[in-house]
Amino acid sequence: MERHLISAADLTRDDAVLVLDTAEELARLADRPIKKLPTLRGRTVVNLFFEDSTRTRISFEAAAKRLSADVINFSAKGSSVSKGESLKDTALTLEAMGADAVVIRHHDSGAPHRLATSGWIGGSVVNAGDGTHEHPTQALLDAFTLRRRLGTGRGGDLGGRRVTIVGDILHSRVARSNVHLLSTLGAEVTLVAPPTLVPVGVHAWPCEVSYDLDAVLPTSDAVMMLRVQRERMNAAYFPTEREYARRYGLDGGRMARMPEHALVMHPGPMNRGMEITADVADSDRCTAVEQVTNGVSTRMAVLYLLLGGAALGGAPGHAAENSAEENT
Amino acid sequence: MERHLISAADLTRDDAVLVLDTAEELARLADRPIKKLPTLRGRTVVNLFFEDSTRTRISFEAAAKRLSADVINFSAKGSSVSKGESLKDTALTLEAMGADAVVIRHHDSGAPHRLATSGWIGGSVVNAGDGTHEHPTQALLDAFTLRRRLGTGRGGDLGGRRVTIVGDILHSRVARSNVHLLSTLGAEVTLVAPPTLVPVGVHAWPCEVSYDLDAVLPTSDAVMMLRVQRERMNAAYFPTEREYARRYGLDGGRMARMPEHALVMHPGPMNRGMEITADVADSDRCTAVEQVTNGVSTRMAVLYLLLGGAALGGAPGHAAENSAEENT
Amino acid sequence: MERHLISAADLTRDDAVLVLDTAEELARLADRPIKKLPTLRGRTVVNLFFEDSTRTRISFEAAAKRLSADVINFSAKGSSVSKGESLKDTALTLEAMGADAVVIRHHDSGAPHRLATSGWIGGSVVNAGDGTHEHPTQALLDAFTLRRRLGTGRGGDLGGRRVTIVGDILHSRVARSNVHLLSTLGAEVTLVAPPTLVPVGVHAWPCEVSYDLDAVLPTSDAVMMLRVQRERMNAAYFPTEREYARRYGLDGGRMARMPEHALVMHPGPMNRGMEITADVADSDRCTAVEQVTNGVSTRMAVLYLLLGGAALGGAPGHAAENSAEENT
Repeated sequence: MERHLISAADLTRDDAVLVLDTAEELARLADRPIKKLPTLRGRTVVNLFFEDSTRTRISFEAAAKRLSADVINFSAKGSSVSKGESLKDTALTLEAMGADAVVIRHHDSGAPHRLATSGWIGGSVVNAGDGTHEHPTQALLDAFTLRRRLGTGRGGDLGGRRVTIVGDILHSRVARSNVHLLSTLGAEVTLVAPPTLVPVGVHAWPCEVSYDLDAVLPTSDAVMMLRVQRERMNAAYFPTEREYARRYGLDGGRMARMPEHALVMHPGPMNRGMEITADVADSDRCTAVEQVTNGVSTRMAVLYLLLGGAALGGAPGHAAENSAEENT
Repeated sequence: MERHLISAADLTRDDAVLVLDTAEELARLADRPIKKLPTLRGRTVVNLFFEDSTRTRISFEAAAKRLSADVINFSAKGSSVSKGESLKDTALTLEAMGADAVVIRHHDSGAPHRLATSGWIGGSVVNAGDGTHEHPTQALLDAFTLRRRLGTGRGGDLGGRRVTIVGDILHSRVARSNVHLLSTLGAEVTLVAPPTLVPVGVHAWPCEVSYDLDAVLPTSDAVMMLRVQRERMNAAYFPTEREYARRYGLDGGRMARMPEHALVMHPGPMNRGMEITADVADSDRCTAVEQVTNGVSTRMAVLYLLLGGAALGGAPGHAAENSAEENT
Repeated sequence: MERHLISAADLTRDDAVLVLDTAEELARLADRPIKKLPTLRGRTVVNLFFEDSTRTRISFEAAAKRLSADVINFSAKGSSVSKGESLKDTALTLEAMGADAVVIRHHDSGAPHRLATSGWIGGSVVNAGDGTHEHPTQALLDAFTLRRRLGTGRGGDLGGRRVTIVGDILHSRVARSNVHLLSTLGAEVTLVAPPTLVPVGVHAWPCEVSYDLDAVLPTSDAVMMLRVQRERMNAAYFPTEREYARRYGLDGGRMARMPEHALVMHPGPMNRGMEITADVADSDRCTAVEQVTNGVSTRMAVLYLLLGGAALGGAPGHAAENSAEENT
């Protein structure tokens, strides 16, 4: 695996499966009396957030702390960054302070890539969402959820699974990361969106596009509903709220068209009544909450692999040893 | 003890005494070279604050860290919560991330109760102040302070102690929690307030009401001055500032009417010159600062009992064992 | 060493050298696999910030965590402090919660001094920058950087080194602290500033003043460029931006007038194009990034000495013992 995690599109199938297998092993921690591993003791993980995102920040924070890392939260609002400090100077500062990993959330697509390729940072850079570009740990946790719920396909991956992603694809880093990762893992991805919310270059993506949600539901193993950003609802390119809910929202009637075993996924937080109705959100088939749990395990796996080195699987005595130390 | 701490009114006398006895034992830690206990290592405590309250937040944070828990601060301001995420979705997210306890501060009376009874949360919910409803850990730390200063009454409790609570009872969660807890512990509570600041249903509370502070001072073992919320001072139901200070403020002259042994209490921060004069605030009889110290021990006891299980007293070897480990 | 660190002017030469030597020893930690020392385990360090300063806050936070202290961040914005709570009540609260050290940043010159001499605080007070007064840990890290780069002078100090400080001396706590500390350590300090930005009382300071940057460059061992505060640029006493950069900015041409071995220092964040050009900022001679790294070691040393007691050098077995415990 590379030193950084910037884009799901960069991950090879082996990389991705390694993360998922490691996350699986770490998820078992949740059943132990003490959930903490000493693996990253003495390492410092900085959450560098240029955009508010409490959910993602605390997921990374919980993941890092469960691996015993020290976590420093750096909200760029109100900091010297907002007074004109460049990303470069911020990066050099964090590097100089000994950050072993910088988890970055940024409104500009490409900021994590710049951070990782600039040479400013000696540690690892993890993209926690950049502009409309990518959100690779979201895709990894989604793949993890799919694999856990639907069972392992060919060779530990998602071979042959059909996943439908519905909503504002144009602005969605979640969709972008999922298209790349899920197809790398062998899934067949279909995007469903209003025509104005499909990116121009989508024909180059490894997926199908449809404008008819009802038509694709019966053959979907999972339907991933994207969150509608309410601040975009009034834009000219956006359907009216009622129109959106009617054509692209998931309600009980539509869910009934899905196969018995098929999942409803959502990255959260859900707009009940918009892209998803309350009954669907609260049904057993909706994995939104599980995805949050899986997010912590997946981010632990990412930090573990980027900072800790060896795969858990490759050093089978390691976890046991840690666990012994922790339980004294 | 229950799994949650929502309301002082829910506590039985045995529950309350158990918390106070445990706090007493934990308070002794402050004298050791290393104040930390490993009891909650690997557990995650989330401070979910919908209202700013740095003092309460850092008291819980210090308490949790002294028990070696990981603490995650979640200020609802600027988070997706403020973008319309429901309490339910926030709760499910925290639960899914593996929060063992959620310490919640909320402007709505009843929010912690909803959180605890909803089934959204598998861990413990601790009410850190909800609207004008309750602030149970404040009442517990006040009871702890009373017991420490005035000595144990009948059966380890506050039997026969007379406590006077003065100020804006109508809006005070501190008053509400104290009335219930102190009477459960056997104290006789008298409320003193301007008539417009007494709740309508007060006749159902286990306490007396008086409008004459000077009359009750000579028989009080403790006088608890509530903080005036300056933002309420201009409301029609509120006396003028001068009138309030004159009739309900505690100054040196009034303090001299109290018995020699009687305490002046205040939950802080104090408005010197309003509900309390500077000389009273700074006198030896004022326990405001001690209450803060006791707040950390009391909150440690609450987290310990809710998350750790057994009473310290019930497992006498436990603390010693921890202490041995910590001092190596 | 005293219990507090308020002002570089208070430090004796022995104090200062002790901090630098301790920082040197702690800096070696950065090369170990686990950078953490258990020295301050169970101690609580509160970052009490009345002014935003993410860089300084996370430097202290990283330093405290590497010594295993618990860190509580208290931003005074939005807290009861902003609702009129006095510094005294805040101090008493932190003291009552058991803070072992309070790292304070305050817009008022003298606030840390008041905190330290008031008797409100039983622990240590560390000044992290107060008004236009002092920023002693900045001066210590600058001295550390000078000593590391230029080699030790007579008796472990900066005997005979010539340091030039350039910019808005009038408002600079960094300049003030450096003048005192560097001269205590034997350096010869020259200030260069527009006449309107030199303090009236400067003749009482242990330094020279010049208005001609070009004249002093050839004999400087280090040139420390102060950050221009953009919010002050429009004040009547301030030169125009262009004038400032032309007369007091450091560019490649000016840097060439400095001796081969001479350093360019900057406390960061740098205004590239104002007080320093990008090529100088990014040259090998600019120690801005090193200063950040050294800041963590220096702040570790300060916390270690104030809270931990004995000098590392005075207890040679100690670090080794810690390191053994950490590496198990």
